[in-house]
Amino acid sequence: MIKIVLLGAGNVATHLYKAISATDNISVIQWYNRTLNNISLYKNEVNITDNLNELVDADLYIICVSDDAIETLSNNLPFEKRLVVHTSGSASLYDIDKKHYRGVFYPLQTFSKDVALDFTTVPICIETLRKQDFKLLKSVGEALGCQTYKVNPDQRPALHLAAVFVNNFTNQLYRVAHEITEHHGAEFDILKPLITETGKKVQDVSPYKAQTGPAKRNDKKTIKRHLKLLDNEHHEAIYKLMTSSIKKTHNGR
Amino acid sequence: MIKIVLLGAGNVATHLYKAISATDNISVIQWYNRTLNNISLYKNEVNITDNLNELVDADLYIICVSDDAIETLSNNLPFEKRLVVHTSGSASLYDIDKKHYRGVFYPLQTFSKDVALDFTTVPICIETLRKQDFKLLKSVGEALGCQTYKVNPDQRPALHLAAVFVNNFTNQLYRVAHEITEHHGAEFDILKPLITETGKKVQDVSPYKAQTGPAKRNDKKTIKRHLKLLDNEHHEAIYKLMTSSIKKTHNGR
Repeated sequence: MIKIVLLGAGNVATHLYKAISATDNISVIQWYNRTLNNISLYKNEVNITDNLNELVDADLYIICVSDDAIETLSNNLPFEKRLVVHTSGSASLYDIDKKHYRGVFYPLQTFSKDVALDFTTVPICIETLRKQDFKLLKSVGEALGCQTYKVNPDQRPALHLAAVFVNNFTNQLYRVAHEITEHHGAEFDILKPLITETGKKVQDVSPYKAQTGPAKRNDKKTIKRHLKLLDNEHHEAIYKLMTSSIKKTHNGR
Repeated sequence: MIKIVLLGAGNVATHLYKAISATDNISVIQWYNRTLNNISLYKNEVNITDNLNELVDADLYIICVSDDAIETLSNNLPFEKRLVVHTSGSASLYDIDKKHYRGVFYPLQTFSKDVALDFTTVPICIETLRKQDFKLLKSVGEALGCQTYKVNPDQRPALHLAAVFVNNFTNQLYRVAHEITEHHGAEFDILKPLITETGKKVQDVSPYKAQTGPAKRNDKKTIKRHLKLLDNEHHEAIYKLMTSSIKKTHNGR
Protein backbone atom coordinates (compact mmCIF):
# COMPACT_ATOMS: atom_id res chain seq x y z
CA MET A 1 0.00 0.00 0.00
CA ILE A 2 1.43 3.36 -1.04
CA LYS A 3 0.61 5.97 1.61
CA ILE A 4 -0.08 9.46 0.32
CA VAL A 5 -0.55 12.86 1.95
CA LEU A 6 -2.49 15.35 -0.18
CA LEU A 7 -1.84 19.07 0.22
CA GLY A 8 -4.36 21.58 -1.15
CA ALA A 9 -8.10 21.50 -1.79
CA GLY A 10 -8.73 22.76 -5.33
CA ASN A 11 -10.21 20.87 -8.29
CA VAL A 12 -7.18 18.69 -8.89
CA ALA A 13 -6.82 17.76 -5.20
CA THR A 14 -10.50 16.91 -4.89
CA HIS A 15 -10.63 14.79 -8.05
CA LEU A 16 -7.38 13.10 -7.06
CA TYR A 17 -8.68 12.38 -3.55
CA LYS A 18 -11.84 10.75 -4.94
CA ALA A 19 -9.93 8.74 -7.51
CA ILE A 20 -7.34 7.46 -5.01
CA SER A 21 -10.08 6.61 -2.51
CA ALA A 22 -11.69 4.35 -5.12
CA THR A 23 -8.53 2.21 -5.55
CA ASP A 24 -7.04 -0.58 -3.47
CA ASN A 25 -3.25 -0.24 -3.70
CA ILE A 26 -2.85 3.41 -2.83
CA SER A 27 -4.38 5.43 -0.06
CA VAL A 28 -4.69 9.06 1.07
CA ILE A 29 -3.78 8.80 4.74
CA GLN A 30 -3.98 12.54 5.40
CA TRP A 31 -5.36 15.64 3.70
CA TYR A 32 -3.88 19.03 4.52
CA ASN A 33 -5.27 22.41 3.60
CA ARG A 34 -4.53 25.95 4.82
CA THR A 35 -8.13 26.15 6.01
CA LEU A 36 -10.34 23.21 6.92
CA ASN A 37 -13.55 24.57 5.28
CA ASN A 38 -13.08 22.92 1.93
CA ILE A 39 -12.11 19.51 3.25
CA SER A 40 -14.13 19.22 6.46
CA LEU A 41 -16.76 17.42 4.38
CA TYR A 42 -14.35 14.47 4.30
CA LYS A 43 -13.36 14.44 7.99
CA ASN A 44 -15.11 11.13 8.66
CA GLU A 45 -13.22 9.36 5.87
CA VAL A 46 -9.72 10.74 6.20
CA ASN A 47 -7.41 12.44 8.67
CA ILE A 48 -7.64 16.16 7.85
CA THR A 49 -5.45 18.96 9.15
CA ASP A 50 -4.63 22.63 8.65
CA ASN A 51 -1.40 22.37 10.63
CA LEU A 52 1.81 21.44 8.78
CA ASN A 53 3.40 20.33 12.05
CA GLU A 54 0.80 17.56 12.32
CA LEU A 55 1.78 15.97 9.00
CA VAL A 56 2.27 12.20 9.26
CA ASP A 57 4.85 9.90 7.66
CA ALA A 58 4.00 8.91 4.10
CA ASP A 59 5.58 7.51 0.93
CA LEU A 60 4.48 10.49 -1.13
CA TYR A 61 3.39 14.09 -0.56
CA ILE A 62 1.35 15.54 -3.43
CA ILE A 63 1.16 19.33 -3.49
CA CYS A 64 -1.94 20.54 -5.38
CA VAL A 65 -1.82 24.30 -4.90
CA SER A 66 -1.47 27.25 -7.27
CA ASP A 67 1.93 27.50 -8.99
CA ASP A 68 2.93 30.54 -6.94
CA ALA A 69 2.36 28.74 -3.64
CA ILE A 70 4.38 25.58 -4.38
CA GLU A 71 7.78 26.93 -3.36
CA THR A 72 6.73 28.30 0.02
CA LEU A 73 4.62 25.30 0.95
CA SER A 74 7.36 22.81 0.06
CA ASN A 75 9.85 24.89 2.03
CA ASN A 76 7.55 24.92 5.08
CA LEU A 77 7.17 21.13 5.19
CA PRO A 78 8.71 20.14 8.57
CA PHE A 79 10.76 17.22 7.24
CA GLU A 80 13.30 16.41 4.53
CA LYS A 81 14.41 13.61 2.18
CA ARG A 82 10.90 12.48 1.41
CA LEU A 83 9.27 12.37 -2.02
CA VAL A 84 7.39 15.63 -2.59
CA VAL A 85 5.74 16.31 -5.95
CA HIS A 86 3.53 19.00 -7.43
CA THR A 87 0.80 18.53 -10.06
CA SER A 88 1.42 21.62 -12.18
CA GLY A 89 1.98 21.53 -15.93
CA SER A 90 3.83 24.77 -15.85
CA ALA A 91 5.82 25.13 -12.61
CA SER A 92 9.38 23.81 -12.49
CA LEU A 93 10.37 20.70 -10.58
CA TYR A 94 12.92 22.97 -8.91
CA ASP A 95 10.15 25.06 -7.35
CA ILE A 96 10.05 22.30 -4.77
CA ASP A 97 12.54 22.89 -1.98
CA LYS A 98 15.80 21.05 -2.51
CA LYS A 99 15.69 19.42 0.93
CA HIS A 100 13.13 16.97 -0.55
CA TYR A 101 13.27 14.28 -3.24
CA ARG A 102 11.48 16.23 -5.95
CA GLY A 103 9.07 15.26 -8.68
CA VAL A 104 6.13 16.28 -10.84
CA PHE A 105 2.93 14.28 -11.22
CA TYR A 106 1.04 16.27 -13.85
CA PRO A 107 -2.44 15.03 -14.79
CA LEU A 108 -2.97 16.46 -18.26
CA GLN A 109 -6.74 16.85 -18.22
CA THR A 110 -9.40 19.48 -17.60
CA PHE A 111 -10.86 19.45 -14.10
CA SER A 112 -14.05 21.18 -13.07
CA LYS A 113 -15.55 20.97 -9.64
CA ASP A 114 -19.06 20.17 -10.91
CA VAL A 115 -18.21 17.81 -13.75
CA ALA A 116 -17.58 14.15 -12.95
CA LEU A 117 -14.40 12.79 -14.50
CA ASP A 118 -13.37 9.25 -15.32
CA PHE A 119 -9.81 9.31 -13.98
CA THR A 120 -8.74 6.46 -16.27
CA THR A 121 -8.89 8.97 -19.15
CA VAL A 122 -6.25 11.15 -17.50
CA PRO A 123 -2.70 10.86 -18.87
CA ILE A 124 -0.09 11.43 -16.16
CA CYS A 125 3.16 13.17 -17.11
CA ILE A 126 5.90 12.27 -14.67
CA GLU A 127 9.17 14.10 -14.05
CA THR A 128 11.65 13.04 -11.35
CA LEU A 129 15.35 13.27 -10.59
CA ARG A 130 15.71 9.74 -9.22
CA LYS A 131 14.73 6.46 -10.90
CA GLN A 132 13.03 5.01 -7.81
CA ASP A 133 10.84 8.11 -7.53
CA PHE A 134 9.74 7.68 -11.15
CA LYS A 135 8.90 4.06 -10.42
CA LEU A 136 6.78 4.96 -7.40
CA LEU A 137 4.88 7.71 -9.25
CA LYS A 138 4.31 5.37 -12.18
CA SER A 139 2.78 2.83 -9.76
CA VAL A 140 0.47 5.51 -8.40
CA GLY A 141 -0.62 6.47 -11.93
CA GLU A 142 -1.19 2.86 -12.85
CA ALA A 143 -3.16 2.18 -9.66
CA LEU A 144 -5.47 4.99 -10.83
CA GLY A 145 -5.84 3.25 -14.20
CA CYS A 146 -4.02 6.06 -16.02
CA GLN A 147 -1.58 6.03 -18.91
CA THR A 148 1.73 7.37 -17.58
CA TYR A 149 4.42 9.20 -19.54
CA LYS A 150 7.99 10.06 -18.62
CA VAL A 151 8.59 13.67 -19.61
CA ASN A 152 11.57 16.00 -19.40
CA PRO A 153 11.74 19.68 -18.33
CA ASP A 154 11.36 20.82 -21.95
CA GLN A 155 8.43 18.56 -22.85
CA ARG A 156 6.13 19.24 -19.89
CA PRO A 157 5.81 23.03 -20.34
CA ALA A 158 5.30 22.43 -24.09
CA LEU A 159 2.51 19.96 -23.34
CA HIS A 160 0.94 22.45 -20.93
CA LEU A 161 1.09 25.16 -23.58
CA ALA A 162 -0.35 22.84 -26.23
CA ALA A 163 -3.09 21.88 -23.76
CA VAL A 164 -4.11 25.53 -23.56
CA PHE A 165 -4.63 25.48 -27.33
CA VAL A 166 -6.68 22.27 -27.45
CA ASN A 167 -8.65 23.01 -24.29
CA ASN A 168 -9.00 26.69 -23.30
CA PHE A 169 -8.78 28.13 -26.82
CA THR A 170 -10.97 25.42 -28.32
CA ASN A 171 -13.53 26.01 -25.59
CA GLN A 172 -13.46 29.72 -26.42
CA LEU A 173 -14.22 28.87 -30.07
CA TYR A 174 -17.24 26.95 -28.77
CA ARG A 175 -18.17 30.07 -26.82
CA VAL A 176 -17.94 32.26 -29.94
CA ALA A 177 -20.09 29.73 -31.82
CA HIS A 178 -22.57 29.94 -28.95
CA GLU A 179 -22.70 33.72 -29.31
CA ILE A 180 -23.16 33.49 -33.10
CA THR A 181 -26.00 30.96 -32.93
CA GLU A 182 -27.77 32.86 -30.13
CA HIS A 183 -27.45 36.11 -32.03
CA HIS A 184 -29.23 34.55 -35.02
CA GLY A 185 -31.85 32.68 -32.99
CA ALA A 186 -30.39 29.27 -33.83
CA GLU A 187 -29.79 26.41 -31.39
CA PHE A 188 -26.23 25.83 -30.18
CA ASP A 189 -27.29 22.23 -29.48
CA ILE A 190 -27.31 21.50 -33.23
CA LEU A 191 -23.51 21.95 -33.16
CA LYS A 192 -22.86 19.43 -30.39
CA PRO A 193 -22.52 16.32 -32.58
CA LEU A 194 -20.06 18.23 -34.78
CA ILE A 195 -18.03 19.19 -31.71
CA THR A 196 -17.87 15.53 -30.70
CA GLU A 197 -16.95 14.34 -34.19
CA THR A 198 -14.22 16.99 -34.56
CA GLY A 199 -12.50 15.73 -31.42
CA LYS A 200 -13.05 12.11 -32.40
CA LYS A 201 -11.54 12.44 -35.85
CA VAL A 202 -8.08 13.43 -34.64
CA GLN A 203 -7.89 10.40 -32.37
CA ASP A 204 -7.06 8.38 -35.51
CA VAL A 205 -6.14 10.89 -38.19
CA SER A 206 -3.65 13.78 -37.92
CA PRO A 207 -5.16 17.28 -37.57
CA TYR A 208 -3.49 18.10 -40.89
CA LYS A 209 -5.38 15.32 -42.67
CA ALA A 210 -8.62 15.97 -40.78
CA GLN A 211 -8.94 19.55 -41.99
CA THR A 212 -11.85 20.54 -44.27
CA GLY A 213 -13.81 23.73 -44.96
CA PRO A 214 -13.63 27.01 -46.86
CA ALA A 215 -10.17 28.12 -45.62
CA LYS A 216 -8.54 24.85 -46.67
CA ARG A 217 -10.31 24.93 -50.06
CA ASN A 218 -9.50 28.64 -50.34
CA ASP A 219 -13.20 29.15 -51.10
CA LYS A 220 -13.15 32.95 -51.26
CA LYS A 221 -16.88 33.30 -51.87
CA THR A 222 -17.86 31.48 -48.67
CA ILE A 223 -15.18 33.26 -46.64
CA LYS A 224 -16.49 36.61 -47.89
CA ARG A 225 -20.06 35.61 -47.03
CA HIS A 226 -18.99 34.58 -43.53
CA LEU A 227 -17.13 37.82 -42.92
CA LYS A 228 -20.21 39.76 -44.01
CA LEU A 229 -22.33 37.80 -41.53
CA LEU A 230 -20.01 38.58 -38.60
CA ASP A 231 -21.01 41.85 -36.98
CA ASN A 232 -18.74 41.50 -33.96
CA GLU A 233 -15.23 42.78 -34.63
CA HIS A 234 -13.79 40.41 -32.09
CA HIS A 235 -15.29 37.35 -33.80
CA GLU A 236 -14.12 38.76 -37.10
CA ALA A 237 -10.52 39.01 -35.88
CA ILE A 238 -10.61 35.34 -34.82
CA TYR A 239 -12.18 34.31 -38.14
CA LYS A 240 -9.49 36.10 -40.12
CA LEU A 241 -6.56 34.85 -38.07
CA MET A 242 -7.68 31.20 -37.99
CA THR A 243 -8.50 31.29 -41.72
CA SER A 244 -5.04 32.64 -42.51
CA SER A 245 -3.50 30.02 -40.21
CA ILE A 246 -5.29 27.20 -42.08
CA LYS A 247 -4.28 28.70 -45.43
CA LYS A 248 -0.67 28.88 -44.30
CA THR A 249 -0.72 25.24 -43.18
CA HIS A 250 -2.41 23.90 -46.31
CA ASN A 251 -1.42 26.27 -49.10
CA GLY A 252 1.80 27.66 -47.69
CA ARG A 253 0.60 31.25 -47.69
CA MET B 1 -40.82 4.00 -50.07
CA ILE B 2 -39.39 7.46 -50.79
CA LYS B 3 -37.52 7.39 -54.11
CA ILE B 4 -34.43 9.58 -54.29
CA VAL B 5 -32.10 10.66 -57.09
CA LEU B 6 -28.66 11.74 -55.90
CA LEU B 7 -26.68 14.29 -57.94
CA GLY B 8 -22.96 14.69 -57.32
CA ALA B 9 -20.22 12.39 -56.07
CA GLY B 10 -18.28 14.21 -53.35
CA ASN B 11 -17.96 13.30 -49.68
CA VAL B 12 -21.51 14.26 -48.73
CA ALA B 13 -23.05 12.40 -51.69
CA THR B 14 -21.03 9.27 -50.97
CA HIS B 15 -21.80 9.22 -47.23
CA LEU B 16 -25.45 9.96 -47.99
CA TYR B 17 -25.62 7.17 -50.57
CA LYS B 18 -24.21 4.65 -48.11
CA ALA B 19 -26.49 5.79 -45.28
CA ILE B 20 -29.63 5.70 -47.45
CA SER B 21 -28.70 2.28 -48.83
CA ALA B 22 -28.61 0.94 -45.28
CA THR B 23 -32.24 1.94 -44.55
CA ASP B 24 -35.56 0.36 -45.49
CA ASN B 25 -37.99 3.22 -46.11
CA ILE B 26 -35.98 5.36 -48.48
CA SER B 27 -33.99 4.39 -51.53
CA VAL B 28 -31.53 5.92 -54.00
CA ILE B 29 -33.00 4.84 -57.33
CA GLN B 30 -30.45 6.70 -59.44
CA TRP B 31 -27.10 8.38 -59.00
CA TYR B 32 -26.01 11.09 -61.40
CA ASN B 33 -22.58 12.59 -61.76
CA ARG B 34 -20.94 14.73 -64.46
CA THR B 35 -18.45 11.93 -65.00
CA LEU B 36 -18.97 8.29 -64.17
CA ASN B 37 -15.48 7.62 -62.74
CA ASN B 38 -16.34 8.35 -59.13
CA ILE B 39 -19.57 6.37 -59.05
CA SER B 40 -18.89 3.49 -61.44
CA LEU B 41 -17.84 1.51 -58.36
CA TYR B 42 -21.54 1.35 -57.48
CA LYS B 43 -22.93 0.46 -60.92
CA ASN B 44 -24.01 -3.02 -59.83
CA GLU B 45 -26.08 -1.66 -56.94
CA VAL B 46 -27.71 1.42 -58.39
CA ASN B 47 -28.65 2.97 -61.73
CA ILE B 48 -25.83 5.42 -62.50
CA THR B 49 -25.74 8.06 -65.22
CA ASP B 50 -23.78 11.05 -66.47
CA ASN B 51 -26.62 12.26 -68.66
CA LEU B 52 -29.22 14.61 -67.19
CA ASN B 53 -31.70 13.64 -69.91
CA GLU B 54 -31.74 10.09 -68.55
CA LEU B 55 -32.92 11.15 -65.08
CA VAL B 56 -35.85 9.08 -63.82
CA ASP B 57 -38.98 10.10 -61.89
CA ALA B 58 -38.41 10.42 -58.15
CA ASP B 59 -39.91 11.95 -55.01
CA LEU B 60 -36.76 13.88 -54.24
CA TYR B 61 -33.65 15.09 -56.06
CA ILE B 62 -30.70 15.81 -53.76
CA ILE B 63 -28.00 18.02 -55.27
CA CYS B 64 -24.64 17.46 -53.54
CA VAL B 65 -22.27 19.61 -55.58
CA SER B 66 -20.11 22.64 -54.77
CA ASP B 67 -22.07 25.80 -53.95
CA ASP B 68 -21.11 27.46 -57.21
CA ALA B 69 -22.51 24.60 -59.31
CA ILE B 70 -25.95 24.36 -57.67
CA GLU B 71 -27.65 27.05 -59.74
CA THR B 72 -26.59 25.76 -63.15
CA LEU B 73 -27.25 22.12 -62.33
CA SER B 74 -30.75 22.82 -60.98
CA ASN B 75 -31.47 24.93 -64.05
CA ASN B 76 -30.36 22.13 -66.36
CA LEU B 77 -32.64 19.51 -64.82
CA PRO B 78 -35.02 18.54 -67.68
CA PHE B 79 -38.23 18.72 -65.63
CA GLU B 80 -40.10 21.06 -63.30
CA LYS B 81 -42.36 21.08 -60.23
CA ARG B 82 -40.48 18.35 -58.47
CA LEU B 83 -38.77 18.61 -55.08
CA VAL B 84 -35.13 19.58 -55.60
CA VAL B 85 -32.89 20.29 -52.61
CA HIS B 86 -29.24 21.06 -52.03
CA THR B 87 -27.13 20.05 -49.02
CA SER B 88 -25.11 23.23 -48.54
CA GLY B 89 -24.91 25.11 -45.27
CA SER B 90 -24.06 28.30 -47.00
CA ALA B 91 -25.82 28.50 -50.39
CA SER B 92 -29.29 30.05 -50.57
CA LEU B 93 -32.44 28.01 -51.15
CA TYR B 94 -33.04 30.42 -54.03
CA ASP B 95 -29.90 29.18 -55.80
CA ILE B 96 -32.16 26.34 -56.94
CA ASP B 97 -34.04 27.21 -60.10
CA LYS B 98 -37.54 28.51 -59.43
CA LYS B 99 -39.15 26.00 -61.78
CA HIS B 100 -38.70 23.42 -58.98
CA TYR B 101 -40.13 23.00 -55.49
CA ARG B 102 -37.07 24.11 -53.60
CA GLY B 103 -35.52 23.04 -50.33
CA VAL B 104 -32.33 22.59 -48.31
CA PHE B 105 -31.31 19.37 -46.57
CA TYR B 106 -28.14 20.42 -44.74
CA PRO B 107 -26.33 17.71 -42.77
CA LEU B 108 -24.36 19.67 -40.18
CA GLN B 109 -21.42 17.35 -39.72
CA THR B 110 -17.84 16.90 -40.92
CA PHE B 111 -17.44 14.43 -43.76
CA SER B 112 -14.16 12.90 -44.85
CA LYS B 113 -13.83 10.31 -47.53
CA ASP B 114 -11.63 8.00 -45.47
CA VAL B 115 -13.33 8.35 -42.10
CA ALA B 116 -16.38 6.20 -41.36
CA LEU B 117 -19.29 8.17 -39.97
CA ASP B 118 -22.29 7.05 -37.94
CA PHE B 119 -25.03 8.93 -39.78
CA THR B 120 -27.32 8.87 -36.74
CA THR B 121 -25.00 11.50 -35.20
CA VAL B 122 -25.72 13.92 -38.05
CA PRO B 123 -28.22 16.71 -37.32
CA ILE B 124 -30.21 17.67 -40.45
CA CYS B 125 -31.19 21.33 -40.90
CA ILE B 126 -34.20 21.60 -43.18
CA GLU B 127 -35.42 24.65 -45.06
CA THR B 128 -38.38 24.54 -47.47
CA LEU B 129 -41.02 26.86 -48.87
CA ARG B 130 -43.90 24.38 -48.69
CA LYS B 131 -45.10 22.43 -45.64
CA GLN B 132 -45.40 19.11 -47.49
CA ASP B 133 -41.77 19.40 -48.65
CA PHE B 134 -40.63 19.91 -45.06
CA LYS B 135 -42.62 16.83 -44.05
CA LEU B 136 -41.01 14.69 -46.73
CA LEU B 137 -37.48 15.87 -45.90
CA LYS B 138 -38.14 15.28 -42.21
CA SER B 139 -39.17 11.69 -43.04
CA VAL B 140 -35.95 11.19 -44.97
CA GLY B 141 -33.90 12.53 -42.05
CA GLU B 142 -35.76 10.32 -39.59
CA ALA B 143 -35.37 7.25 -41.82
CA LEU B 144 -31.62 7.90 -41.56
CA GLY B 145 -31.93 8.01 -37.75
CA CYS B 146 -31.02 11.70 -37.62
CA GLN B 147 -32.27 14.54 -35.48
CA THR B 148 -33.99 17.03 -37.81
CA TYR B 149 -34.33 20.77 -37.29
CA LYS B 150 -36.47 23.31 -39.10
CA VAL B 151 -34.30 26.34 -39.82
CA ASN B 152 -34.89 29.66 -41.52
CA PRO B 153 -32.71 31.55 -44.04
CA ASP B 154 -31.07 33.52 -41.24
CA GLN B 155 -30.33 30.56 -38.97
CA ARG B 156 -28.76 28.17 -41.49
CA PRO B 157 -25.87 30.44 -42.62
CA ALA B 158 -25.26 31.33 -38.95
CA LEU B 159 -25.04 27.63 -38.09
CA HIS B 160 -22.66 27.08 -40.99
CA LEU B 161 -20.48 29.94 -39.81
CA ALA B 162 -20.54 28.67 -36.22
CA ALA B 163 -19.66 25.20 -37.53
CA VAL B 164 -16.49 26.65 -39.07
CA PHE B 165 -15.49 27.86 -35.60
CA VAL B 166 -16.16 24.57 -33.78
CA ASN B 167 -14.81 22.36 -36.56
CA ASN B 168 -12.25 23.96 -38.93
CA PHE B 169 -10.81 26.46 -36.44
CA THR B 170 -10.80 23.97 -33.58
CA ASN B 171 -9.05 21.45 -35.80
CA GLN B 172 -6.46 24.11 -36.64
CA LEU B 173 -5.85 24.62 -32.91
CA TYR B 174 -5.19 20.87 -32.72
CA ARG B 175 -2.76 21.35 -35.60
CA VAL B 176 -0.91 24.13 -33.79
CA ALA B 177 -0.74 21.93 -30.66
CA HIS B 178 0.67 19.19 -32.87
CA GLU B 179 3.38 21.56 -34.12
CA ILE B 180 4.21 22.70 -30.58
CA THR B 181 4.53 19.17 -29.17
CA GLU B 182 6.58 17.96 -32.15
CA HIS B 183 8.87 20.97 -31.87
CA HIS B 184 9.64 20.07 -28.25
CA GLY B 185 9.90 16.33 -28.80
CA ALA B 186 6.70 15.58 -26.88
CA GLU B 187 3.93 13.20 -27.94
CA PHE B 188 0.77 14.74 -29.41
CA ASP B 189 -1.01 11.54 -28.34
CA ILE B 190 -0.84 12.67 -24.70
CA LEU B 191 -3.29 15.46 -25.61
CA LYS B 192 -5.93 13.21 -27.14
CA PRO B 193 -7.89 12.46 -23.95
CA LEU B 194 -7.98 16.21 -23.22
CA ILE B 195 -9.33 16.86 -26.73
CA THR B 196 -12.09 14.31 -26.10
CA GLU B 197 -12.94 15.68 -22.65
CA THR B 198 -13.04 19.30 -23.91
CA GLY B 199 -15.68 18.36 -26.48
CA LYS B 200 -17.55 16.19 -24.00
CA LYS B 201 -17.79 18.85 -21.33
CA VAL B 202 -19.85 21.28 -23.43
CA GLN B 203 -22.41 18.60 -24.22
CA ASP B 204 -23.82 19.26 -20.72
CA VAL B 205 -22.31 22.53 -19.54
CA SER B 206 -22.19 25.86 -21.43
CA PRO B 207 -18.82 26.83 -22.94
CA TYR B 208 -18.90 29.83 -20.63
CA LYS B 209 -19.10 27.62 -17.55
CA ALA B 210 -16.67 25.05 -18.93
CA GLN B 211 -13.81 27.53 -19.30
CA THR B 212 -10.67 27.14 -17.17
CA GLY B 213 -6.98 28.04 -17.54
CA PRO B 214 -4.56 30.96 -17.27
CA ALA B 215 -6.51 33.43 -19.43
CA LYS B 216 -9.72 33.00 -17.43
CA ARG B 217 -7.79 33.26 -14.15
CA ASN B 218 -5.82 36.19 -15.57
CA ASP B 219 -2.70 34.33 -14.46
CA LYS B 220 -0.14 36.76 -15.93
CA LYS B 221 2.88 34.72 -14.87
CA THR B 222 1.81 31.59 -16.78
CA ILE B 223 0.72 33.62 -19.82
CA LYS B 224 4.12 35.31 -19.88
CA ARG B 225 5.87 31.94 -19.58
CA HIS B 226 3.81 30.55 -22.47
CA LEU B 227 4.54 33.52 -24.71
CA LYS B 228 8.24 33.09 -24.00
CA LEU B 229 8.02 29.44 -25.02
CA LEU B 230 6.36 30.24 -28.37
CA ASP B 231 9.00 30.88 -31.01
CA ASN B 232 6.61 30.91 -33.95
CA GLU B 233 5.03 34.33 -34.50
CA HIS B 234 1.95 32.78 -36.02
CA HIS B 235 1.29 30.63 -32.96
CA GLU B 236 1.99 33.67 -30.82
CA ALA B 237 -0.67 35.72 -32.63
CA ILE B 238 -3.25 32.99 -32.02
CA TYR B 239 -2.23 32.70 -28.36
CA LYS B 240 -2.59 36.45 -27.82
CA LEU B 241 -5.91 36.79 -29.62
CA MET B 242 -7.57 33.78 -27.97
CA THR B 243 -6.26 34.85 -24.55
CA SER B 244 -7.70 38.34 -25.02
CA SER B 245 -10.98 36.80 -26.23
CA ILE B 246 -11.26 34.67 -23.08
CA LYS B 247 -10.39 37.67 -20.90
CA LYS B 248 -13.08 39.74 -22.62
CA THR B 249 -15.68 37.02 -22.07
CA HIS B 250 -14.82 36.39 -18.45
CA ASN B 251 -13.45 39.66 -17.12
CA GLY B 252 -15.10 42.07 -19.53
CA ARG B 253 -11.82 43.43 -20.85
